[in-house]
Amino acid sequence: MKIGVIGAGAVGLYYGSLLQRAGHDVRFLLRRDYDVITGSGLTVNSPRGGFHLEKILGFRDSNDMGTVDLVLVALKAFANHLLAEMVRPLVADHTALLTIQNGLGNEELLAEAFGGDRVLGGVAMIGVNRGEPGVVNHMALGSIRLGEFNGGLSPRSDQLAAMFNAAGVTCEAVADLRKVRWEKLVWNIPFNGLCALTNQMPGRLLANPATRSLVAEIMDEVIAGGNAQGLSEPISGEYREEMLASTARHTSDYRPSMMLDRLEGRPLELEAIYRIPLRYAARQGAAMVRVGMLHALLDLGEPASK
Amino acid sequence: MKIGVIGAGAVGLYYGSLLQRAGHDVRFLLRRDYDVITGSGLTVNSPRGGFHLEKILGFRDSNDMGTVDLVLVALKAFANHLLAEMVRPLVADHTALLTIQNGLGNEELLAEAFGGDRVLGGVAMIGVNRGEPGVVNHMALGSIRLGEFNGGLSPRSDQLAAMFNAAGVTCEAVADLRKVRWEKLVWNIPFNGLCALTNQMPGRLLANPATRSLVAEIMDEVIAGGNAQGLSEPISGEYREEMLASTARHTSDYRPSMMLDRLEGRPLELEAIYRIPLRYAARQGAAMVRVGMLHALLDLGEPASK
Repeated sequence: MKIGVIGAGAVGLYYGSLLQRAGHDVRFLLRRDYDVITGSGLTVNSPRGGFHLEKILGFRDSNDMGTVDLVLVALKAFANHLLAEMVRPLVADHTALLTIQNGLGNEELLAEAFGGDRVLGGVAMIGVNRGEPGVVNHMALGSIRLGEFNGGLSPRSDQLAAMFNAAGVTCEAVADLRKVRWEKLVWNIPFNGLCALTNQMPGRLLANPATRSLVAEIMDEVIAGGNAQGLSEPISGEYREEMLASTARHTSDYRPSMMLDRLEGRPLELEAIYRIPLRYAARQGAAMVRVGMLHALLDLGEPASK
Repeated sequence: MKIGVIGAGAVGLYYGSLLQRAGHDVRFLLRRDYDVITGSGLTVNSPRGGFHLEKILGFRDSNDMGTVDLVLVALKAFANHLLAEMVRPLVADHTALLTIQNGLGNEELLAEAFGGDRVLGGVAMIGVNRGEPGVVNHMALGSIRLGEFNGGLSPRSDQLAAMFNAAGVTCEAVADLRKVRWEKLVWNIPFNGLCALTNQMPGRLLANPATRSLVAEIMDEVIAGGNAQGLSEPISGEYREEMLASTARHTSDYRPSMMLDRLEGRPLELEAIYRIPLRYAARQGAAMVRVGMLHALLDLGEPASK
């Protein structure tokens, strides 16, 4: 399959390299590290076994990439105002668009530009960071759940799930994409924001009783906010306990992407991870008070708000 | 009047020095800066006119201070476990105890140790910091409202108010001390905590729309929490607007005491300003959700919680 990766940060490089290793024709839109990656290839370090890809098809401009069968979007959501323009040259009649970006609003943006029938969304549970130029450090997890923007299962979503599984990525096609998006937010909203705000890792937040309770209360707010959207079936209260346990087990010492963004002076994905979920929840009468407070505290630290 | 000042930080030194200048016999319990202050005196800088007191009666140990007519307590509330022991040597039969410490629980502590009938509380609206050793910088405001711990007006509370007024401190005796304590918390709870947490001054919090709303919402929670205590009359919703306007006018660039405590690595007054108010509010069914979240975030940064 011919695949174009838009947004080749740690997540895009990781999944793209696994797909290339599995034999697909993968083209990467690269900004940072273009020279190193196209010159010397890409190294993936992983507890599951690292590997090196000698030859990476990298492009500085998506106009040079050609049309593809699948566009895999892993752009930071704060750059979404550029997304449609970056994707457009890759789109042929049959092209499917799969966004595995964080938060809400990304499928909607692609659907508006290219039509909802070609759009899928995926939720990646993964701990991955960039190391030195040309190196991706995979820390933990890595599975994807994906589904059609228009809802329901389809031959296409099954085929894409099979493709990821064959490439070594545990992947499940789901009928209710909105549900898995909100489930991911149950983790992202507390940990991305609290870690970025306090400069502490998840394990430290769980070790302090006051912030452990706060994380759990924020998770409850997000679960209620999601369930107010009329999902196919509600997110259960047990999901919170699963997330707390899984965090303690796998990502206790993991720096969430938003914490790294803050540390490295980049803007935060506040629109996709906070503002749109807050609006969707408020529209259904779910207040998410603590989430709103966390957003306000994060917004205060943004360069644009100074 | 013979007055013993326990807790000679910026606030205790400021009011004590005004009372001494007005002719009272004031004794200070000093830790930090004992040598400088007893050797070279105390300098007060103030927009209302600074002054220097050549001779300060300083003591390292309250056992050497003798009994007094009035004990003025301005100790940081995080040192309250030492308070009764420090105060005891100053107490004769007729001695009154006036605590102008922050937050809730201070009068209760003195009442338990010495009997409620000799205890008064005062709420100081003041911006004052310590400068170099032997120097107090008065920035803004300075008034005190004081009242009997047991409630109601008394000849004693009127007399103390008159004493402060004669010394140049605008002071009012009030019948409902609990009400003015909660009114002070309407300012302290948002600004002390948010400034300490974000390392930003009040004016910056009010300039960002998201945190300005947050400050107002926290003030609403505290007003509701106070009003749930059955005050003599409720704190009005207009009080919030007055506090926001007064902050913008007077203390926009003022570092609240808790912000300085955090910057200088001291513990924070979390018990008096957050935990006791949260307990009192919860007991009456008022949740103060954002206040609880702010407390959790502050607690995470405490040395003891690490």
